[in-house]
This record gives sequence, C-alpha cells and structure tokens, in this order.
Amino acid sequence: MRAAVLRGVEDVEVVERDVRRPGSREVLVEVGSVGVCGSDVHYYEHGRVGNFVVTEPLVLGHEASGTVAALGSEVTGHRVGQRVSIEPGVPDFTCAECRSGRYNLCSAVRFMATPPVDGAFCEYVTVHEGFAHPVPETISDDEAALLEPLSVGVWACRKAGVGPGDRVLVSGAGPIGLVTAQAALAFGATEVLASDVNPHRLRLACELGCGDVIDVGTTAVRDTGFEPTVLLECSGNPGATTEAIRTVARAGRVVLVGMGAEEIPLSLSHVQEREIAVAGTFRYANTWPTAIALVASGRVNVAGLVSARFSLDEVESALNYGRRDDKAVKAIVRPSMDVLG
Amino acid sequence: MRAAVLRGVEDVEVVERDVRRPGSREVLVEVGSVGVCGSDVHYYEHGRVGNFVVTEPLVLGHEASGTVAALGSEVTGHRVGQRVSIEPGVPDFTCAECRSGRYNLCSAVRFMATPPVDGAFCEYVTVHEGFAHPVPETISDDEAALLEPLSVGVWACRKAGVGPGDRVLVSGAGPIGLVTAQAALAFGATEVLASDVNPHRLRLACELGCGDVIDVGTTAVRDTGFEPTVLLECSGNPGATTEAIRTVARAGRVVLVGMGAEEIPLSLSHVQEREIAVAGTFRYANTWPTAIALVASGRVNVAGLVSARFSLDEVESALNYGRRDDKAVKAIVRPSMDVLG
Amino acid sequence: MRAAVLRGVEDVEVVERDVRRPGSREVLVEVGSVGVCGSDVHYYEHGRVGNFVVTEPLVLGHEASGTVAALGSEVTGHRVGQRVSIEPGVPDFTCAECRSGRYNLCSAVRFMATPPVDGAFCEYVTVHEGFAHPVPETISDDEAALLEPLSVGVWACRKAGVGPGDRVLVSGAGPIGLVTAQAALAFGATEVLASDVNPHRLRLACELGCGDVIDVGTTAVRDTGFEPTVLLECSGNPGATTEAIRTVARAGRVVLVGMGAEEIPLSLSHVQEREIAVAGTFRYANTWPTAIALVASGRVNVAGLVSARFSLDEVESALNYGRRDDKAVKAIVRPSMDVLG
Amino acid sequence: MRAAVLRGVEDVEVVERDVRRPGSREVLVEVGSVGVCGSDVHYYEHGRVGNFVVTEPLVLGHEASGTVAALGSEVTGHRVGQRVSIEPGVPDFTCAECRSGRYNLCSAVRFMATPPVDGAFCEYVTVHEGFAHPVPETISDDEAALLEPLSVGVWACRKAGVGPGDRVLVSGAGPIGLVTAQAALAFGATEVLASDVNPHRLRLACELGCGDVIDVGTTAVRDTGFEPTVLLECSGNPGATTEAIRTVARAGRVVLVGMGAEEIPLSLSHVQEREIAVAGTFRYANTWPTAIALVASGRVNVAGLVSARFSLDEVESALNYGRRDDKAVKAIVRPSMDVLG
Repeated sequence: MRAAVLRGVEDVEVVERDVRRPGSREVLVEVGSVGVCGSDVHYYEHGRVGNFVVTEPLVLGHEASGTVAALGSEVTGHRVGQRVSIEPGVPDFTCAECRSGRYNLCSAVRFMATPPVDGAFCEYVTVHEGFAHPVPETISDDEAALLEPLSVGVWACRKAGVGPGDRVLVSGAGPIGLVTAQAALAFGATEVLASDVNPHRLRLACELGCGDVIDVGTTAVRDTGFEPTVLLECSGNPGATTEAIRTVARAGRVVLVGMGAEEIPLSLSHVQEREIAVAGTFRYANTWPTAIALVASGRVNVAGLVSARFSLDEVESALNYGRRDDKAVKAIVRPSMDVLG
Repeated sequence: MRAAVLRGVEDVEVVERDVRRPGSREVLVEVGSVGVCGSDVHYYEHGRVGNFVVTEPLVLGHEASGTVAALGSEVTGHRVGQRVSIEPGVPDFTCAECRSGRYNLCSAVRFMATPPVDGAFCEYVTVHEGFAHPVPETISDDEAALLEPLSVGVWACRKAGVGPGDRVLVSGAGPIGLVTAQAALAFGATEVLASDVNPHRLRLACELGCGDVIDVGTTAVRDTGFEPTVLLECSGNPGATTEAIRTVARAGRVVLVGMGAEEIPLSLSHVQEREIAVAGTFRYANTWPTAIALVASGRVNVAGLVSARFSLDEVESALNYGRRDDKAVKAIVRPSMDVLG
Repeated sequence: MRAAVLRGVEDVEVVERDVRRPGSREVLVEVGSVGVCGSDVHYYEHGRVGNFVVTEPLVLGHEASGTVAALGSEVTGHRVGQRVSIEPGVPDFTCAECRSGRYNLCSAVRFMATPPVDGAFCEYVTVHEGFAHPVPETISDDEAALLEPLSVGVWACRKAGVGPGDRVLVSGAGPIGLVTAQAALAFGATEVLASDVNPHRLRLACELGCGDVIDVGTTAVRDTGFEPTVLLECSGNPGATTEAIRTVARAGRVVLVGMGAEEIPLSLSHVQEREIAVAGTFRYANTWPTAIALVASGRVNVAGLVSARFSLDEVESALNYGRRDDKAVKAIVRPSMDVLG
Repeated sequence: MRAAVLRGVEDVEVVERDVRRPGSREVLVEVGSVGVCGSDVHYYEHGRVGNFVVTEPLVLGHEASGTVAALGSEVTGHRVGQRVSIEPGVPDFTCAECRSGRYNLCSAVRFMATPPVDGAFCEYVTVHEGFAHPVPETISDDEAALLEPLSVGVWACRKAGVGPGDRVLVSGAGPIGLVTAQAALAFGATEVLASDVNPHRLRLACELGCGDVIDVGTTAVRDTGFEPTVLLECSGNPGATTEAIRTVARAGRVVLVGMGAEEIPLSLSHVQEREIAVAGTFRYANTWPTAIALVASGRVNVAGLVSARFSLDEVESALNYGRRDDKAVKAIVRPSMDVLG
C-alpha cells in the first residue's frame, strides 16, 4: 500500500509499505478520511511532541474512518464492507486504570501517529475490533473521521457535567472548541458562548449554534458580564486560560482541554473563594457510541468544520494548510482520493 | 377576592375571601393561570391524599402563575407588574435538609393546596419573593403555570443523570410523563420512548418529540427489544412499574416519579444482577431557573399539553374534566377569565 | 491433583484430576484456604443456583488463597512462592461494561465454582495474573481467602458512599453482614448497627465493632428509634428488607447485598417521600487493593469469622456444617491439610 | 461585658461593651474557649485580610465554644446551660447558593471576626440557634472551639472523596494540616503522609496518626516515591503546592485548603496527562454534626493541638504567640479565665 511517512522535520514522503495483517481480534480497514490534527502539524514542524520523538519514519494521522476490508480469525461483530470510525488509542485492557474504566490513562496504550505507532495517512490500517466502531450509512467518511475530535468535546462535557441550566464558555474556537461548543449544546446547556481572536472561527461558532461569541482580541470576557457556570478551555493559551477562569461563577467547573502550555498561573483566591473545580482531561474513554449518536441525529455538525481536502500525495500541503490560511479550520486527507479529485 | 374552596368530597364553592397581605419578604400575586393536577382531583374526589386530610375549607391549585400586584416591605428583587411563575412549596430554610440543599425534604415545608395551606384557585396569592420566579414576556401565563410539572420532569432527569448516550423509557404519558419525556430530550438523551395505554397521549408524546411510543395495552416493553439505560416511571401503576424495571439495562437508573401505589414488587434478582439504581423523588429543588430556560428557548413545549381552560366558577368542571374525556391532558383554571371567556 | 467434585445433589467425591497448565498470562496457584460460601451450599443442596445448573461434575469454592507455584510465559508481576488472594471472576476485558470499569457486569465473565467453571476445592488452580493479588506475609491464608467476602462489603460501602456522619444499619449478621459492618466502620461511619435473629451472630457483631445490635426476632428496628442514613441489606430476607427500608432517613441510601428472594415489596410512598436511593449490587470490581489494605492495617478482622476448618476429604462436612451448628459462621477448607490436622 | 477589640494594626484593648440581646431565633452564649486562627493574626498584623479592611474597632476570634445563657423568643432546640460549639458564618438562607446547599458560598454571609461582624474574644456572643451546635459533655470547651478548624478538614476530605484505598498527602502540618490529616484517617484513607519544614509539627503529625512524614526542607516529595491519590494542600505556599501537585497519581484529586498566595503555577501537562481534578475550598457547609461525632468518638484528637492558653487580657500575647515560638501550634483564648489561671 501507499503511505505518507514523516522522515524528519518538514519532510514527508509517500512510500510503498506492506499492509499489516490483522491479528485475531483485529480488522483491516481501508482508510476513507483522516482529519489533520494540531499534533500532526506539531510532529511535522518539530519532529516531536513533548517527550514523544520521531526517530523512525512515522505515518501521521489519528482521526480516521474507513471500510472494513478483512477480518481477523476471531472477529465476530464486523463484516467486510462495514464502514467504521476508528478510535485511535488501544489500551492494554488489564491494568488498574483500564479495569477502573479509565482506559485513556493506561500507560501501555498504543495510540496512532504517536511514536512508535503508525497512524492513518495511508491506504490501510489494522485496528482492534472494539476500536473500529461501526457507523450508519448516514454518517459520511469525513464525519466518521471527525468523531475523534468530537469525542474530545463529549469527554469535556462529561467531565464538567454540562446540562440544562449551565452557562458555558468555550474559550478557543478552533476545531476542538467548535465541536466542544456543539457538544455542550447537545448536553442541554442553556447558553453556550465561544471566545477566540479569529473572526472567521467566531462566525463559524455562531453558525454552529453558539448563542453569542466574544472576540477576546478586542473585548475581555469579564467586561461582557457573562459569568459561566462551566468553562471548557480549548485555546491552550495560558493568558486566555487564566483570564477565563477568573470569570467562572461560584461552584463553577473548569475543564482544561487545550494543550501546549507547560504551566498556567491559577488564581488561587478566585478558585478558593468560589470553590471552583478544575479538571484536566486526556483524550477520552467510552465516547464513541455517544459521538456517533450525536452526529447521526444531526445534533452535532462536524461536516461543517471541513475546510479543505487533500489526497495522500498532498499530505505535506495538508500539514502546511493551517498556517497559510486564516480561514482554515479542519483539513481532511483522503488516501483513496486522486490528486485532482 | 373570589376563591374556589373545597368544602368536602366533590363539593367546591366560590366564596369571597380577604386577600392576605404580603409579609415583609413576600409578594402579592394576581393569579393568571393554574394547572389542575392529579392531586387536586384526588382531594376533590376523596377529601384527602395519604395522611393529608381536608378538615377546613381548602383552596386547591398549586401550578400557578400571575403578575406581582404588591410588594412586602423588604422585597427588592421584584416590581409591581412583574410576571412570575410560582414555586408552591416554601421550606423553613434552616433545618438540616434545607441547609443541605434538599429543601424539598424539609419537614416544615408549607406547600400550596395541601392542608392547611391554601392554593391558587383564587384571584390573589401571597408568595415568598424567592418562590415567585420572574419569567420573560415570551412565556405565557399558562406556560408559567406549567413550569411546576416541568420541574418534576427536570428533577427526575437530574436524579437519573440523563444525558447524551442514554436511551430513556418514560412509562406513563400523562402530563408528568409528557413533560418528563421532553425534559429527557432537552438533557440530551439519545433516544426517548414513551409508553402508555392511551393512544391519544401516545400520539401527543410523538408530537412532542418522543422517537417512538409503546402501547402497553397491546405490547409488552420487553417484547420491543428496547433496553433503556434510564427508566423515568411516571405511571404510578405498580404492575407497569415492575414490568418496566425488568427491561432496564445493566447499570441502568430508575427514577420513580409516579405516585399512588403503596408498594411495588421489586424484582430483586434483576436489580442486583444488573446493578440497577432506583431513586425515589419527591417534588423538586432548585429547578425553576432551568425550567424557565427550557421553555423560553423552545426546547420544551408545555403549552401543547393544555387541552381545556376554565374560569374560577368552573373549577368543579375543571376537576371533573379528566375523567370525562379521554383526550383530556391538562386543564387550566384562569381565575380572571370570564365564564364565557 | 486431588479435587472435591460435586457430582449431583448432596454428592461430593474427591477425585484425581490433571492440573491445568497456566496460559501465557496465568499463574498456577497451590491452594491454601477456601471459604465456604452460601452459594456453594446452595449448589450442593439443589444442584443449581438460579439459571446456573450443574450438569457436569463441578469443583466448588470461590473464596480462595494460596501460593504461586508456576508462571505463564508472559507473567512479569509474580514470582514462584508469592502468596496471593484470588479474585474469582475474570471478565473478557473488552466489552462495553469492562471498558466502563464495571467488569463485574461483564456478561462473558468466567467465575469460579459457577458452571461450567471449576472452583478451588482442590490442590491447584490457574488464575489470570491480574486476579491473583499478592498479599503481604502478615495476612494469613484464611484471611487472604476471606478478602473475597470482604470485597462484597467494600463494594456495598462504596455504592452507598458510606463515610463520617453516616448512621449505618447492616441487616443480617451472617458472614457478609459481619464484613460489611466492619467495612462500614472502616469507611468512617459514625454509627454502625447490626440486626439479625441469631444471638450468637449479634454477639460476634459487637465483638467486631458494631456499636449496637438489634435482635429482630424480638424487636422491630423502627421501635428502636434508630433512623439510618444508610442501609446495607445483607439478610436477603424479603420481609426484613421491606421493614428495614422503612426505617431509612430522608435522602438515605439502601444497598441490596443479600440475595435469594425473587421479589421484595418496596414501599413506594416511603421511598418517594424520603427520596431514598436503592442500589442493587452484583459481586464487586476493583476492590482487592482496598480489601488487602483494610486487613493488613488491622482495620477489619476477617479471621474472627472463621469458626471451623476442614480438609479436602471433609468438603462434604464443610458444606453441611452451617445447617448443623447455629454458631457456625464461616467454614474454611484447606486442601493441603491432613484429615486429622 | 468585657471584649478585646482590635483598634488598629497591632493594637488590641480590652473594653466594656453591651451584651447584644438575642434575636427571636438566636441564643446568647457565654464564651468558653476561642482558638486563635491565622486570619486573626493577619488582621492584627496588617489591619486587613484581602478586601476585608478593619475600619471600626473589631472583636477577633471565630473558633468558639461556650454555654447557652439565654434564649431568643422562638428558640426551641436549646436550653440554658447547654454547651455548644459555634459555627461562625451565618448565611442568608434564601439565596440561590444557600438553597443549593452551598451556604458557604452565600455572598451575604455574616462571618464572625470579619469586618464589620464581631468575633468571640469577649465574654458573650449571640448566635443563630442553628449555628450553636450542642455538644456532649465528653467534649471540652477547647475541643468544641476546635471543631471549627476540624470542619475545614472534614470539608476538604469530602471534596476529595477520601476513603479506603486512598494514599493521602497533607502538605503543611500547621493546625489545619494536622486536623485535615486526622480527618483523612477518619475517612478511612489507607495511608496519610504529612509534609512540612517544621520538625516539631512533623513529630506532632506522627503522634496524631500520620504513617509517615516528609521534611520538605531537606527532601522533595517526589524523591520519596510516594504517589498520592489525594493531595490536601494546607500550606498555602505556592512553590510547595506546585511541587506537591506534580506527585499526584493518575485520576488523583487535589483540594486547595491553604490560603495566602494570589496565584499558583499549575503544571498543565501533569494535570492533563493524569486527569487530575483540582478543587478550591472556602470554609465548609454542613460539617458540624460530623466533626462533633469524630471528636466524641475519639477518632480525631483536637485537644492535642492546643499548645498555649490565654485570658482575655492576654489576647495580644495570644496573637503574638505564634511568631515567637516555633513549637506553637494552637493558642486558645479563654475569656472567663483569670490572668493567672
């Protein structure tokens, strides 16, 4: 098969690779769509993310969907031709974290596109049957791929306990912020506001259902009078995070989704006087059935995030796309698409 | 003022009464709409509900709304002319239950239309300022009155922790079932089914958003293959309750809303093998802001429940209406309405 | 090896069997002690428990401890000679229940001494490495075996959220009641009372730390004035359960541990008016580390439950012991013990 | 009566004041013991704590106990001579926070020794009947006074959900750390370690039940290999807090009790990768019954914290005591004690 491999900083090449045979409980999936994530771009630009360093050629891409092409010997819940959304991190199932239902915290997890585990910018991937989630025909390949970022939003809303009565601030209206805001609405939040500095993304947030938006380039959240009961922090910007936390209401909940900063200054007096609960999040667990239902029912629109599509030969363009175009939201790579498609 | 008083079993008369002057933290409310609840009908038919016995003439009606007509000396959050929805149970605020946030369990609560506390089938009522909840102009008097039953549904959904991913069975599609089903949808439930034996109510359940309905007069829930993660029991029928609990999925939650039966037979083996949690509910606490938001945003339709309106002189007709008409859902009494209005 | 097999109703014979070789992630354990559970007795007396029917010769016994005698090829966390407590139910790890941390609800679980899975009334068993929990030398074989019933008590306390401030009623002072009462004390409960009809067991409950006991053969709980915030029902008796639930305080929690009855009559009005939460429990999940710590620190005394010990040849006596002696509490089978030992 | 009033920075004088008559639901309490809190010392040294500025003469002291001397007209639950522990913050009972059970977050709370509300360094105080908690005779006046700091510890443990299985780090072994560590033990924590830089306090922590202690002046927590599941931060020191959070296990909980710092640097990557939950705390709600039970049963030793006692005339010495003596832990003022007593 053909696979786009990252060989070093800003160096991607499409090469021929053997298709890996599915293990007894794995399925072989012909890749349909793969979303480009910020972490893919970070690997491309720096050759590493935190302690994960690319030392061998690595296939990027972990927001993936496709169609089952072959079955391992013990697989019973799938059939060839079944369309699936891929959950990219397969844990060891038996450690204490897994047994407690927190498989996202499994220290032995194998996560796609994280060294040394290859991702999905290629024609075929093999996946544990339990992590190749069947999707109905009404969900497109692009949508099925974007169930991965939507899972991040679902997880954040679960951690925060979002529900009717909540006023939610989503700080940062990039792809994660946009799906998280929609997830908050689907969880019944009474009011959902998004904040960002990018007017295009704020417009999109409105189109996708946010009641109002705040351009924090010109207006501080605290000057708007909006006092959220829940803050879903998706910007990863330390200054924005600190400021946003200061607006949270008494007994409010903060979920930290955005990554990148090493430290954030936490206003101790505010967090104490208002008894605010701040929760870190790492990926997600048990979110796919819910994410599938949210998209299948039309409650969440992930297709609206897709702003460009690329073929396998264009993976490098896909990885550069975000920094070239301030209207870029989500790039999709379609390994089976012709370059001119 | 004029008030409809229950003097004995099936004996209601409209009499003149003094308007009670508001205490320092009370407001005087000119009553707009009052929903007729099953407990009103029960008092009318039997002169009692459980241990509560009507020994003095009693004004019924506790689902009420209206307009502020006068303010107590220390009231600051209201103005004359403010339209309000009335929360009918005012607790003592200082007992251990109140201080724990469970003011619905306050043993000293004064609840409208429960002996010896008068209700709202009259022209004016006085209400603690904190229990006369301002509503926006977009919410009608009828809707404002029906925030009381909606609160029951909101409370049930909170107790059950309804959210995206849940498959909810609402057993019983009377007024409480219909608002509870809508509340479950507003809490983000993936699927909400209603069951009843009354085809008219089942049709209404569909119109109000239920994905499907089950006529349990002809079909057992368990034969439908539907395995709810949450059962919101609103029928009060012991047999229906026992049957419905048997369909609940592993780790499912059951909330008992429907009243009337003294005992229900609980399938111990089912509840244990599936680790089902069964919660009793009694009224509600801290639900009005959420209920207001649900109706104001259009997520819940309470107006659609109203099937008949009556004047103060017609209160007895209103109380008899339900047993005369199998399409009856919710009767409203409008104390200021002319008989022919 | 030698194994005591149940061949039919009240028919146990010691036979020679092959030792099963450990799989790659299993350990071979030389059995030290095995507690006799009520379900063992039930299989012995009736040849079945509920839908589980003994059709092939079955080794009973699922409360087991021992010493690691051999390791599977991939086992890394154990060594030969390591003493272990055995968690008897190994789930499939990958189903939705397992992935949610509720592995006790896994429908594919293989549970010892439940047809067709053999138990531990024999000299050797093979166990998944993650379910053979290492214990410190300060914990005896008998104690290590009784971590299984203690796990039931820990699970009940977790489900109920027992903690300081709680007044706990443990109804039923058999082995499960006795460990559950002690667990409740270890969880910090302010007051723990046990009720039973057996004076010997009530005396033992006092010795093991219960502040008071109620002989429900002569005194109704409600007549004692004790109003528990938590009821841990360990009797399995429908009448006792119904009565005990009626004493529970407002916002109280009930956990149903005792088994046997098909149905219990649930007082709907009491459960509703007091907003009582009733939870079913099925075995346990993730309890061993806590159970080990409770016994190792001396906070829970499980050794005090042991009232008789039997050799492998005496298994039938062990199974008959409980109905012959009203001071019987917990019988232990020691497969390596000489008949006269 | 005589009262010690703070007139300005480091200026306390004992003056004659009128005894305030109890309101209808208040009791008059003859003050027995009053603990000196860090906030009292802060007011004494700086004339302010945060935004609270002493502009009028202020009586300090909010950890108080005593004996009921007179009853308001509607008080029913007390009698003259009843010994009580005083909960110092009386909320408005009717705001949204109070109605939700979070009366500690009531913005209209009147809290003793916080301008403009006087405290208890005087002979008599009047207290809302519901905040004058009766104590049994086995609890001394000193102990009854120290139920206030113990409540802080109980609240922290509740917020963290401390229970069996938890390994708890209490950072900071001042009075609050010492009661919090004991509370954690009483909640059933498997292991409780205290850290501080003061060897005397660490010795005391051991005596009061901590399994081990860490002198963070010489040893970093992370070098000990201890990985807490719960961190109860009682030092208020930003550096210590940041360091301590970095040691917390996956899915661990952090409760911030110690005050003083404006900001703490929060390690975002650690909090996210391990999904740590960080909760701010402000005072306490509904803790007294539990605190009373913990001391009455001997599970928590608050008397062991008392290191010096002072008369009313010695209040200034009591306020200076802590900075003069590195073995100082908790000073008590006894308004009825003779200077030489």
